Amino acid sequence: MPRRNSLPTEKLSGEEFLRIAWLTRVFSSGPGSKDVSLGIGDDAAVLRANRNQWVWTVDACVQDVHFNWKWLRPEDVGWRSLQAAVSDIAAMGAQPVAALSSLALPGDAQTALWRGVLRGQSRASKSLDCPVIGGNLSRASEVSIHTTVLGHVKRPILRSGAQPGDEVWLVGSVGAAAAGLTVLRRVPDNERDSAMRSCVNAWRHPRALTKEGALLNGRAHAAIDVSDGVAGDSLHISRASKVAIVLDASALQLAAGASVKRVASALRHSVLDWVLTGGEDYALLATGPARNRPSFVKCIGIVERGHGVWLNSVDGKRQRVGPGFDHFKLKR
Amino acid sequence: MPRRNSLPTEKLSGEEFLRIAWLTRVFSSGPGSKDVSLGIGDDAAVLRANRNQWVWTVDACVQDVHFNWKWLRPEDVGWRSLQAAVSDIAAMGAQPVAALSSLALPGDAQTALWRGVLRGQSRASKSLDCPVIGGNLSRASEVSIHTTVLGHVKRPILRSGAQPGDEVWLVGSVGAAAAGLTVLRRVPDNERDSAMRSCVNAWRHPRALTKEGALLNGRAHAAIDVSDGVAGDSLHISRASKVAIVLDASALQLAAGASVKRVASALRHSVLDWVLTGGEDYALLATGPARNRPSFVKCIGIVERGHGVWLNSVDGKRQRVGPGFDHFKLKR
Repeated sequence: MPRRNSLPTEKLSGEEFLRIAWLTRVFSSGPGSKDVSLGIGDDAAVLRANRNQWVWTVDACVQDVHFNWKWLRPEDVGWRSLQAAVSDIAAMGAQPVAALSSLALPGDAQTALWRGVLRGQSRASKSLDCPVIGGNLSRASEVSIHTTVLGHVKRPILRSGAQPGDEVWLVGSVGAAAAGLTVLRRVPDNERDSAMRSCVNAWRHPRALTKEGALLNGRAHAAIDVSDGVAGDSLHISRASKVAIVLDASALQLAAGASVKRVASALRHSVLDWVLTGGEDYALLATGPARNRPSFVKCIGIVERGHGVWLNSVDGKRQRVGPGFDHFKLKR
Repeated sequence: MPRRNSLPTEKLSGEEFLRIAWLTRVFSSGPGSKDVSLGIGDDAAVLRANRNQWVWTVDACVQDVHFNWKWLRPEDVGWRSLQAAVSDIAAMGAQPVAALSSLALPGDAQTALWRGVLRGQSRASKSLDCPVIGGNLSRASEVSIHTTVLGHVKRPILRSGAQPGDEVWLVGSVGAAAAGLTVLRRVPDNERDSAMRSCVNAWRHPRALTKEGALLNGRAHAAIDVSDGVAGDSLHISRASKVAIVLDASALQLAAGASVKRVASALRHSVLDWVLTGGEDYALLATGPARNRPSFVKCIGIVERGHGVWLNSVDGKRQRVGPGFDHFKLKR
């Protein structure tokens, strides 16, 4: 998940794609290995281990980039960091096995801070049945947590498997986390109604959908976790699979859930904007044939021949949707 | 390797031990896993994978803590970061399989910087036959690289296996990296002789001893990589194995190598200080019975009943050596 960001005001550029293309070339020129089935470019790398495959990912949470202390307790930061990393494992249809946590923090960080972060990771690890079995502590000028997770799966679901004719499926809900972040920015604590509190909670306490991810196995052709918003992550599938993804605006509106709609109405914000560009719900996006559609997914579009991500709006018009987020180029 | 630091002026405290003890308790209360053979506390965690075991580690290199741009090019930083992480795998007697690289850098970082870091990692990965197969890019206010490595081995060599009666073995050389760092600090570029340049190069371009580590298998009872200096890492073995480590000052002087002695003499510095407290050579420290001693190791001490790390000085006196480095408590 090298593209997630908690800052929905950061917008779209191709810069990060270029960086990843460059580093993919550099590392591809290196040694191969009989143990490696899949390298850079998906939610996780894949290693062979006899009948099973291991999927392996690393994810970063950096202070003032992915989180800030104004809106999150240390426990929340730890919780989110592990859920975010495990979400990549879920997006491969795999079950998490274990995690390592590399925590960097200032020399004068209070005990409550680093203990809180680790306690949050520990709680998330219990909720996900994914023990933290090692890690690293180091000094830095800002707090960051780099979490690496291993999982196993018989056959990982890649981004590159989408086929024309597939449906586009949404697993879990989207938009609530982005709505929650907007609430935190714009609505004082004592003025928040229950829908607002629900969205704030969705942002603070996401859950990686490991059970649902595993149930996509044998049904979905492609999957990714929604960390850049449905638009950005659809583009990842579109590029990897060389297909067009056509999203349906009405279905996306329906998929957003009642709380998101109530908050959007109260704050005069577009539901569709939160759904298309808000990450951090850690929903899953998958494609597969209609006959395989599981009961727990919502169909939000179709896969066609072609390229790019398109939106069929409520009035029947089709428009192109821009590329994903970029952490680097854009300022908050 | 949660304790290494490039700053030999940082000294010794028990704080980090306490932190690690605390987090070990927190994470030990979490879920177990049938796939996990060994959790927090050694150079790497260990996972079962049929006949083989996987060893797994993560290591951080943080700007102005583990490196600075004054003395290292981006390529050097990348090289060192991968070598340091793989060194933990070597210390388990394992062969590296693959790595993931989580790179955080400022939004305005120059292309040459991040490309250099990744190119250095790529070169190191070739030299170690350890492909970088994935990772993460994120924004941060300072550059940091968190590298996670998987390796495999039939039976990992732990810190906890040392037995009274074992010899203490040094694999590779120690002191040169610390001497090189002192040279960088104290001697202008144009005044450095060949011994000084050799030590600077040892600090800039360490090599993880994966081949030697693998050859310790079936011979050594315990092993660790030297990241805190021989004193600090002996203490790790001493504590994990519940034994006393008795080092021999004459043997340590001999083990330091000619360049280190020449630089020590020129700068009026103690060879023994660099050997005992300088990490970053990525030598290996092991213990094993005399009959198993490989030809490529130097015997630098013995294992006895008891606890702590002791130094038999040249004049026959025995003195206690202090505990390891602490990144957190101490300022540069």
